[in-house]
Amino acid sequence: MSKPVITAFDWVPWFAKGLVRDLRVRWALEEVGQGYDVRYLPQGTQKRPAHRALQPFGQVPTYEEEGLALFESGAIVLYIAETHGGLLPADRGGRARAIEWMFAALNTVEPPIMDYAIATLFEADQPWSKPRLPAIVARISERLDELSRRLGENQWLDGSFSAGDLLMIAVLRQLKGTPMAAMHDNLAAYAARGEARPAFQRALAAQLAGFTAKPPPEYAFLDQPPAKQGELA
Amino acid sequence: MSKPVITAFDWVPWFAKGLVRDLRVRWALEEVGQGYDVRYLPQGTQKRPAHRALQPFGQVPTYEEEGLALFESGAIVLYIAETHGGLLPADRGGRARAIEWMFAALNTVEPPIMDYAIATLFEADQPWSKPRLPAIVARISERLDELSRRLGENQWLDGSFSAGDLLMIAVLRQLKGTPMAAMHDNLAAYAARGEARPAFQRALAAQLAGFTAKPPPEYAFLDQPPAKQGELA
Repeated sequence: MSKPVITAFDWVPWFAKGLVRDLRVRWALEEVGQGYDVRYLPQGTQKRPAHRALQPFGQVPTYEEEGLALFESGAIVLYIAETHGGLLPADRGGRARAIEWMFAALNTVEPPIMDYAIATLFEADQPWSKPRLPAIVARISERLDELSRRLGENQWLDGSFSAGDLLMIAVLRQLKGTPMAAMHDNLAAYAARGEARPAFQRALAAQLAGFTAKPPPEYAFLDQPPAKQGELA
Repeated sequence: MSKPVITAFDWVPWFAKGLVRDLRVRWALEEVGQGYDVRYLPQGTQKRPAHRALQPFGQVPTYEEEGLALFESGAIVLYIAETHGGLLPADRGGRARAIEWMFAALNTVEPPIMDYAIATLFEADQPWSKPRLPAIVARISERLDELSRRLGENQWLDGSFSAGDLLMIAVLRQLKGTPMAAMHDNLAAYAARGEARPAFQRALAAQLAGFTAKPPPEYAFLDQPPAKQGELA
C-alpha cells in the first residue's frame, strides 16, 4: 500500500514554525511508525478551490490514503490511532479516556490559548488587545491549574502515553515564550517529556525542514522574530 | 445493565438555557434510544472536589456507566456513537468523515462562536468587548461562509445524519438571537432540520425541565432575559 500523503506549508511566519498543525499528524505517524509523504502548499494557495475541495476551511493539514481523504488534525490523529497500535489503550475504558483527553485538549484547553495568540500576534496592533490580555491569561491559568492538579506526579494523563497526551502537549507547546509556560512545574515537565520522545523530535525536524520557500514580499517582515521582542511578541 | 448517569445543572442563566452541553449528550442518547438518568448539580458545587474528581475542569456533563466515567461532551457523544448504532456510518471512510466533522465543529467552528459569547455575555461590561466585536463577527462569518459552501444543498454534512451533524448543529445553535444565525439560508435550514428531529426535541425538553432550582441570590438578575434587550444581549 502506498504511503499516506499530508499537506503542509512551505513557509509560515516565525511564530508558527514548529507549531503548525501538521506537526500533530506527523507526530502521530512517527509514533506508530507509519511513513508518509508531504505535499507542500505554497502560501496563499490554501484558500484556493483546489485545496478547499479537500479542506473546506482552507487550512492544513489534510490526510489522504487510498480511498480516503480527511481534514481536521484532531480527527486525523484519532484515525491514525485507531488504525495503528500504540496511541490508544486496548481496553474499552482506557481507550475512551484517551479520546476524552483529545477532546479536552482541543475544546477546553486550546480555545483560550488560541485567544492569547490572536491578541498577541494577529490582533496585536488592535487597541483592545492589550487591555484584554489579563482576562485571557486568567482564563488560561484556570485551565492550567486544573490540568496541573489532575496530572499531579503522573508521567502522562491516564496511564501510558496516548493520543490524548499527544494533543494536550501539542496544545501546551503553544504557550512557549509566554509567562504561562513555566507556571506549573509538572506541566512544564510533562510537555518536555513529550518533546523528548524520538517520534516528536523527528516530526518537529521534518516540519522545520519543510519551510524551504521565501516569504511572499508583503510578509517578509514576519520571516524572523523581531531583533528585540516587545512584550506582545 | 443499569442506565448511564449524566450530570447537569439545576439552574443556569437565561442565555444558557437550552445550550448547556449536557444537551449534546442527551441528544445523542435520544438518537440511539438509550435511556439515562441525571444527577443534578446545585449551582456552585461543580467546582468542588467531589465533582472535580469526575470532571477536572469543573464542568458538565459527565457520563457514568458500569466501570466507566467520562467527561468532555464531544468525547461522550463519540463514545455513545461508537457503542450504539445510528450516529456513525458503518463504512471506514464514512465513519472517519463523521468524526472529522465532530472535530471541525468543536475545534474550528466553535472557538470563535465562544469568543462572541464571552464578548457579549461574560465580558459585556468590559471596555474592550464592543470595539472587538466586528473582528469576532468577521472570524465567525468566514467559518460560516466556508461551512455553507461545503454543505450546499445537502441535507447533512456527509450522507446521513451523524454525530458530526449533531455537534455542528449544537454549535450553530449558539448563534441564535444574533445576526449571524440568519446569514446563510442553507445553514439556518440545516440547523432547523436538526432541531426538528424528535430526539433533539426530547433532549431539549428534558434539559429545560431540569432547571427546577431558584438562582443563587447574587445571580437572580440572570434568571430571565432583560425586558428590553440591548444590542449586546
